[in-house]
Amino acid sequence: MTVFEALNSQTLPLRLGGTAAILDRVGVDTSAWKIREVGDGNLNLVFIVDGTKGSVVVKQALPYVRLVGESWPLPLKRSYFEYQALVRQQERDPGMVPEILHFDREQAIIVMEFLTPHIILRKALIEGQQLPRIARDLGLFTARTLFRGSDLSMETRKRKEDLALFSDNVELCDITENLVFSDPYYEATLNRHTTPQLDGIVRELRADRDLKVEAQRLKHLFASNAETLLHGDLHTGSVMVTPEETRVIDPEFAFYGPMAFDVGMLLANFWMSYFSQAGHEKDGDRADMRDYLLDVVVGIWDTFRDEFSRLWHTERNGILYQRTLFEDRGDALGSTQALDEVLQSIWTDMLGFAGVEMHRRILGLAHNADFETIEDADLRARCEAKALKLGRHLAVNRRKIHSMAEINALAGRLEKEIVA
Amino acid sequence: MTVFEALNSQTLPLRLGGTAAILDRVGVDTSAWKIREVGDGNLNLVFIVDGTKGSVVVKQALPYVRLVGESWPLPLKRSYFEYQALVRQQERDPGMVPEILHFDREQAIIVMEFLTPHIILRKALIEGQQLPRIARDLGLFTARTLFRGSDLSMETRKRKEDLALFSDNVELCDITENLVFSDPYYEATLNRHTTPQLDGIVRELRADRDLKVEAQRLKHLFASNAETLLHGDLHTGSVMVTPEETRVIDPEFAFYGPMAFDVGMLLANFWMSYFSQAGHEKDGDRADMRDYLLDVVVGIWDTFRDEFSRLWHTERNGILYQRTLFEDRGDALGSTQALDEVLQSIWTDMLGFAGVEMHRRILGLAHNADFETIEDADLRARCEAKALKLGRHLAVNRRKIHSMAEINALAGRLEKEIVA
Repeated sequence: MTVFEALNSQTLPLRLGGTAAILDRVGVDTSAWKIREVGDGNLNLVFIVDGTKGSVVVKQALPYVRLVGESWPLPLKRSYFEYQALVRQQERDPGMVPEILHFDREQAIIVMEFLTPHIILRKALIEGQQLPRIARDLGLFTARTLFRGSDLSMETRKRKEDLALFSDNVELCDITENLVFSDPYYEATLNRHTTPQLDGIVRELRADRDLKVEAQRLKHLFASNAETLLHGDLHTGSVMVTPEETRVIDPEFAFYGPMAFDVGMLLANFWMSYFSQAGHEKDGDRADMRDYLLDVVVGIWDTFRDEFSRLWHTERNGILYQRTLFEDRGDALGSTQALDEVLQSIWTDMLGFAGVEMHRRILGLAHNADFETIEDADLRARCEAKALKLGRHLAVNRRKIHSMAEINALAGRLEKEIVA
Repeated sequence: MTVFEALNSQTLPLRLGGTAAILDRVGVDTSAWKIREVGDGNLNLVFIVDGTKGSVVVKQALPYVRLVGESWPLPLKRSYFEYQALVRQQERDPGMVPEILHFDREQAIIVMEFLTPHIILRKALIEGQQLPRIARDLGLFTARTLFRGSDLSMETRKRKEDLALFSDNVELCDITENLVFSDPYYEATLNRHTTPQLDGIVRELRADRDLKVEAQRLKHLFASNAETLLHGDLHTGSVMVTPEETRVIDPEFAFYGPMAFDVGMLLANFWMSYFSQAGHEKDGDRADMRDYLLDVVVGIWDTFRDEFSRLWHTERNGILYQRTLFEDRGDALGSTQALDEVLQSIWTDMLGFAGVEMHRRILGLAHNADFETIEDADLRARCEAKALKLGRHLAVNRRKIHSMAEINALAGRLEKEIVA
C-alpha cells in the first residue's frame, strides 16, 4: 500500500529521478535539477524542473482544493482522468496537448513536456496580444476531439466503456454542476461579485425566471447528455500559446457530456475578454484588439463547423447516421440534412452554455483575471455588467439567434452602451 | 471457477434445491417438484416449478439468442442487469415487478414469484380483453421509475455509479440501436415484412429522407441521453395482467437512456394493437375494444403526466431545478415553467420513439403477435400499413403534434381509411 505524499523541491528528485523518460529529457544528474513550484491554479501543485539537458513540468493533484484548503477535499483520481483525457486528445488531434513523459496514478503525478516560450492565452489577451493561430487551432481541436469521442466516430462499445470510466469523475462534474449552473443564480455562500456596483443587476438576474429556467435546462443537458468526451474546462486559462503554436492543457474535468459545452465555454471567455479590454485600455488603444477578439469568435465557430462537417462526410463510421441509410443509397442530401440538424442543435446549446459561463465568472466563486486585474472597481463593474447582459441574452434567446454576426453586433452595441 | 450450465428439468432441483427462499415457496420435497419449460421469448429459458407448497418461475439466460441459435452469441451478464433493474424498479414503484427469491450471477438465474392467474398483456389484447387497471398502473410505473431513476430525484453520485454499471449492458443496447432505429429503414439481412402486399409502402418509407433523418436523430438521443434508468423493452409482451393487477417483467434491456423511450415504446404497442383488432374481429365485434385501446393511450399519458408532475412538486430532491432557485425564493411558477418544458420535451421525443417502434415491429426482425397471428396476409398487411402510416406521421411531425386527441383522431381516420 503506497501512501500519497505531496511533492516538494527536496522530494521531487527522489520520487522521479529513477524514471528514464524524465532523465532523458532533463538530464541524469538530479543534483543539478532546479525546481520551482509555479502552480497558480485553483487545485494542484505544478513544478518546473530544469536540468542540464532540458526541462519538464510536474503536475501533482492534492487531496483537496488548493484555493480553499483541506476543508474542501477533492479526490486524487482526477489526475487519472486528466491523464486518460490527454491520451485521447493526443490521438484525436495530435500535437495539440503536451507530450506526457510519465504518469504515477498513486501519487497523482503527471510529468509532461515543458512548453516554452508559451504563455497562458488569458494572460496574452489581457496584455492585448493578437495570436494569429488560435481561432483555427481551437476550432480544429474542438471539432476533432468532440466528433472523434462520440458515437459519430467511435465503436460504441469503446465509447460506453469510456463513459463508464469517466462517470467516476463525479466530484469534478459536481463542481461544474453547482458552480456554473446553480450558485450564480441565488445567494450561494461561495459567490462574490463587484459590490455594490453590480448589486442591482445581480438582483435582477437572480429574479429572472426565464434565465433560471434556461440555466437549469442547460444543467439537465450537461448532466444527462453523455454525447462525447469533453475537455470540461476549456477556457482561455487552459490554453498555452505562442504566435506560432497553440496547446490545450488541464483536462481534469474531462467527462462524457454534450458537445456544445466545450465550445460554449471557450467562446464565452473570448466575449469576456472583449468586454474586459476597456479595463486594460490606455488612450483607446484596444480598439483593434476588440475587433480581433470578435474575429476570433467567428473564426473558432466557422472552423469548428467546417471541420465537423468535413469529419461528418469523411469519418462518420460510428453507429449514428450510418452511410447505409444515406450515401450508400444515393441519398447524400439526407446525411447533409442530418448534419444541419446536429449543427443547429450544437449552435443553440453552445450559446446557452456560453451565457451561463459568462455569469458564473462574474457572480460565482471562480472569477477570471480578465476582469479581476482591473483595479478600478467602477470600471471593472461597467465591463462586467456588459458581459452579464450578453450572457443573459444568449442563454434566454438561444433558440432565436441566427448568426455570430448578430451576436458580435450586439456585443459592439453593448460595448458602446447603445443598448443596456 | 464455475462453469455455466443450461438448466433442464433434471438439473434444476439439484441446482436450486438447497436455497431456503425457494424451498420455503415451493416445498422442501424436491422430488415432488414438477418442472415445465415455458419460455416463448426470443432470448432465455423459463421454467415453472410447482411443488407441494407453491410455485416459482426460474429464468435463465443463455449465452446466445435463443430465437436464432448459437450463431448469435449474447452475454449472460444481461441476467445481472435484469436483476439490478428489478431491484430498482421494486424500490421505485413497489409491487409492480415480480418478487425476487434468488439470484445466481454465474449461472444467470433469477428465481422469482410465479404470477398467477396473470397472462401476458399482449395476449389479452389480442383476445379482446379490456383490462381496467392498465392505464393507471402503467402510467404510474413509467412516471415513478423514470423520475426516481434520474437526477431529478437521485443523489447524482449514485446515478453516475448506476450509469457506469448499466453502460456495460452494451450488447442489448446494440440490439435496440440496430433493430429499432436503423435496420427497418434499409434492406438489412434480418428484416422481413408481409410481402408482396407491403412492398410498395416499405419502398416508400425506405426512400423517405425526413423519416430516416428523424429515426437517426432519435437513435442519437437514445445512445447519448443517459437521463434515467429505462426498462428498455417496455412493450405489451413485458406486462402481465389480471383484471385486478398489472406487473412489469423482463427488464434485461435496462440501461440509462432518455425518459421518453419507455413511454413511446409502450404507447406504440397499444396503437399497433388498435390497428390489429380488425384482424381478430368477428362481425365488427371489436369496435368497443378499439375505443378502449385509444382510451388506454390517453389514460397512460395523462397518468404519466399527472404523476410526474406530482413527483416534481413533492420529490424533486436531485441536482436539477433545485428548490433553492424557485420555491424557496417564492417562485413556484419558475419551477412549473421548467416542468412544462421538461414534459414538452418528453412528449415530443416520446412520439418519435413510438413512431419508430411501430415501424420496426412490422419491417424488422422482431415482429409482434398482434399482427403475426392474423393468418390472412392481405388482411394483416392492411392492418400493418395503417400502423406504418401512423408511425411515419408521429416520427416526422413529432414537434408539431399537440395532443393525444389529435393522434387518436388520426388513428381513427386511418382505421376507417378516410386518410391514407
